[in-house]
Amino acid sequence: MASPSLIGRPGRALVLVGFMGAGKSTAARTLASDALDTDAMVEAELGAPVATIFERDGESSFREAEERCALKALNLASAGQGGGIVSLGGGALLSPVLREALKAHTVVHLELDEEGCWSRVRSSSFVRPLAADRERFGALYEERRSLYSDAADVVLPSDGVRSLRAAMPSIDLLSDAPDGTRLAWASSDSGAYPVFVGQRLLAAKPLRPEGRFVLITDSNVAPLHAEAFTGAVNAIELEPGEENKDLEACAHAWSQLAQAGVTRDDRVFALGGGVVGDIAGFVAAAYQRGIPVVHFPTTLVAQVDSALGGKTGVDLPEGKNYVGAYHQPAAVISDFDVLRTLPAEEHSAGMAEVIKTALISGGPLWDSVAAGRFGISEVFECVRTKLSVVASDERDGGRRQVLNLGHTVAHAIETATGYGRLRHGEAVSIGLMAALRLSGADELRNTVADLLVGAGLPLTISGVDCDEIVALTKADKKARADGTVPFVLCDRPGNATHGHPVPDAELRAAVKEVCR
Amino acid sequence: MASPSLIGRPGRALVLVGFMGAGKSTAARTLASDALDTDAMVEAELGAPVATIFERDGESSFREAEERCALKALNLASAGQGGGIVSLGGGALLSPVLREALKAHTVVHLELDEEGCWSRVRSSSFVRPLAADRERFGALYEERRSLYSDAADVVLPSDGVRSLRAAMPSIDLLSDAPDGTRLAWASSDSGAYPVFVGQRLLAAKPLRPEGRFVLITDSNVAPLHAEAFTGAVNAIELEPGEENKDLEACAHAWSQLAQAGVTRDDRVFALGGGVVGDIAGFVAAAYQRGIPVVHFPTTLVAQVDSALGGKTGVDLPEGKNYVGAYHQPAAVISDFDVLRTLPAEEHSAGMAEVIKTALISGGPLWDSVAAGRFGISEVFECVRTKLSVVASDERDGGRRQVLNLGHTVAHAIETATGYGRLRHGEAVSIGLMAALRLSGADELRNTVADLLVGAGLPLTISGVDCDEIVALTKADKKARADGTVPFVLCDRPGNATHGHPVPDAELRAAVKEVCR
Repeated sequence: MASPSLIGRPGRALVLVGFMGAGKSTAARTLASDALDTDAMVEAELGAPVATIFERDGESSFREAEERCALKALNLASAGQGGGIVSLGGGALLSPVLREALKAHTVVHLELDEEGCWSRVRSSSFVRPLAADRERFGALYEERRSLYSDAADVVLPSDGVRSLRAAMPSIDLLSDAPDGTRLAWASSDSGAYPVFVGQRLLAAKPLRPEGRFVLITDSNVAPLHAEAFTGAVNAIELEPGEENKDLEACAHAWSQLAQAGVTRDDRVFALGGGVVGDIAGFVAAAYQRGIPVVHFPTTLVAQVDSALGGKTGVDLPEGKNYVGAYHQPAAVISDFDVLRTLPAEEHSAGMAEVIKTALISGGPLWDSVAAGRFGISEVFECVRTKLSVVASDERDGGRRQVLNLGHTVAHAIETATGYGRLRHGEAVSIGLMAALRLSGADELRNTVADLLVGAGLPLTISGVDCDEIVALTKADKKARADGTVPFVLCDRPGNATHGHPVPDAELRAAVKEVCR
Repeated sequence: MASPSLIGRPGRALVLVGFMGAGKSTAARTLASDALDTDAMVEAELGAPVATIFERDGESSFREAEERCALKALNLASAGQGGGIVSLGGGALLSPVLREALKAHTVVHLELDEEGCWSRVRSSSFVRPLAADRERFGALYEERRSLYSDAADVVLPSDGVRSLRAAMPSIDLLSDAPDGTRLAWASSDSGAYPVFVGQRLLAAKPLRPEGRFVLITDSNVAPLHAEAFTGAVNAIELEPGEENKDLEACAHAWSQLAQAGVTRDDRVFALGGGVVGDIAGFVAAAYQRGIPVVHFPTTLVAQVDSALGGKTGVDLPEGKNYVGAYHQPAAVISDFDVLRTLPAEEHSAGMAEVIKTALISGGPLWDSVAAGRFGISEVFECVRTKLSVVASDERDGGRRQVLNLGHTVAHAIETATGYGRLRHGEAVSIGLMAALRLSGADELRNTVADLLVGAGLPLTISGVDCDEIVALTKADKKARADGTVPFVLCDRPGNATHGHPVPDAELRAAVKEVCR
């Protein structure tokens, strides 16, 4: 492909980072045939292939040359050479000098799981000195995870150049967004979309799709944040609360949309927490068989979980989310600042999902959360964890089910208590306790219990009939026709697995422990 | 690929037919590497390439050898040779002897449009004597259309071997189906499914997917046909009529499903006309975010139109089908016999869609319909026409819009009259009159008017405000934000095209003519 004049912005290079085998060089060359590649620059400077340099001069000599070449590449790309694109070697971020220098540029992390990197490295003709041994490769992968995630402004699945190309217009928008805004690219079979995470984003109009929109929010959120959405064709204020997440709310919204003359060229902007997002998402999914929805999640639960992945729906008296659709958003814009207006118990409820996500992710996110850290970086890491799981399985057939860690019992508790008594996150907190007991991970369960309590969450619920909860798990949407319910178990951070049938007696014991 | 022992049934060859370039030989070889190919057999027998035989001995000598080889191939394949598969040359069906012999076998038509065949023929190294001239090629394509459609038990889109492979289990079911059952394979981005058309099919249990099902029907249809569906987990009887196609009906059905403990492993069987299919389809689409639906259409409208293509939904007071989903069925089973129980006016309403579909299709279907013929073959031809349009554009972005020929004005009339007064097909009849006037096809309009009147359909409606109809067309789901409504026009059979903006004055005149 011919190189376009400039892919990065003037004065700002587009820098591809990621583990070896993630496909950085190939992606860079596809975007611009003369893209700058630090491995190639080092080889040219030292007159030998990387493997020879490692062997002959040692890794530290290579790293010195790599740092030098990388800094030079940034300067050249900033001046418009190589299409403004730099592909960095997998270990280049070990240099603190380079990490500092990258702050002035747009860093894109091409993310690929360890197994994917290994198989690409093994099938490549390029000899990588650090990829000789499978075990060492895995250890290195774990070691370096945080280097990439700390440096990246943008995270993309490494699927050749497809996502990178699709994400370019969104990456471009970052220049007009408030400083520090980060972008995670969601990609699944039925669509791809940007998720922006940052501060002052509700007011950041350049990030919003242009054109006519209807605002759907609720009467709690509207007074706080609706002023940022002047110009809506119509503004629908729902009754807040899970107990109002029903078909009646949808019917009302559909009539409003129809009366406002909303067409398929228009959009729904969903401003609110999980309930608003679920309703507005389903309203958009079914109105005229589907119009786009942009989520502006205003709760922690919504930012790290419910606004992502396209699940929408409302409750029936018989069960939670029993009527809904898969409808991927057109974009998600998460403003960390709005979390400041959250009541303490809403924040707590969100932390249940953060802790759950950290359990699924393992790695740097788990380390952070287990150490009690929470901030915009943790929200972003939760987002990319969820997106990466959804990307592998949009429709809940397999891997996506791990996101339901703790949720089978949680949904049963919510059904039993009529959705009104507990926040979703509180139910998840209790559900996590049951799931970790079923996983036989007693020590991890204690650690997680401390984190949940520390976040102000309950570990048990009183006044609920244990038998009813057990029976309700079997009415879960994931229940099979034979009456078994596959559980998600997690024996250590980073190792959540799904589809485990659980014996009735064990389930009863685990439920009994949390229902007092 | 290795040849499996036998693809066809013992004693029954699987015979691929289709126009030159449709990919018969390649598909056959992919299924069974030693599949029998009549062109190759002729070449072997006469010791020269097809082109040479044409030149040296003339077409009639080739046809004689082809007939001989084809009959021999059928015998060999019936005995299990070549995986039981025969690929027939494009002109082989010119032989009446062969056409007669094929009745004992399963004939699969690989369908590809003229342009597609031409481009494959031009890029192939195999020299086809009848593909030298583009115009003659096109004439031949038109000439032969009816040969394939008359002979075929099965029609598949020719998309390499993908649909053929996917359809094999459904093709196998034909052996257990009543004689004369035909199969059209639907293929679109979001799914593929079989459409069976035949007689005595409601009772033909082998065609139904196994497992638990909920029957959704209405109180008109239930007494006539529900007895064929013993064993349903639950049977939901809707109020009949378009005026009951609303959210309330869905809410009722969703509760029933939930109370019956329906899970994602179960299915909805929709037994009824367009209204039942639209409601049941949307109920299935949204229940637990989607469970499979099998349509058993019992009206002509449903068999030729509404049960196909995955559009589901219900009406709002503000507009028809304003809330719904795209949800491809798991299967469609159309029993021609049930049409006998239709009231005359329901049959008439269906004929409006048949005539519309024939206008879109052109070719043999138009010839048949214009000559006043109507039977199971015409239903099947309507099915394949609709499926082929949907396959090219599932979500109404482009080509699929031609199916709305006559529907923009029809929907407006239905909205103005509150859905209760006219059958959908009656509105379409009136809408066709308007659309053909807008197309400037006055002579064709007269022909179609005669056909519609002959089918007992109205060409005009009284007591409706012309201005209201014009205004309502602009509230159509296809309306653009700038207020224009793109119309589907048709200047001759087989040439319906979409996206035509129509000047207000012309629209007003065309509407005025039909609203008296």
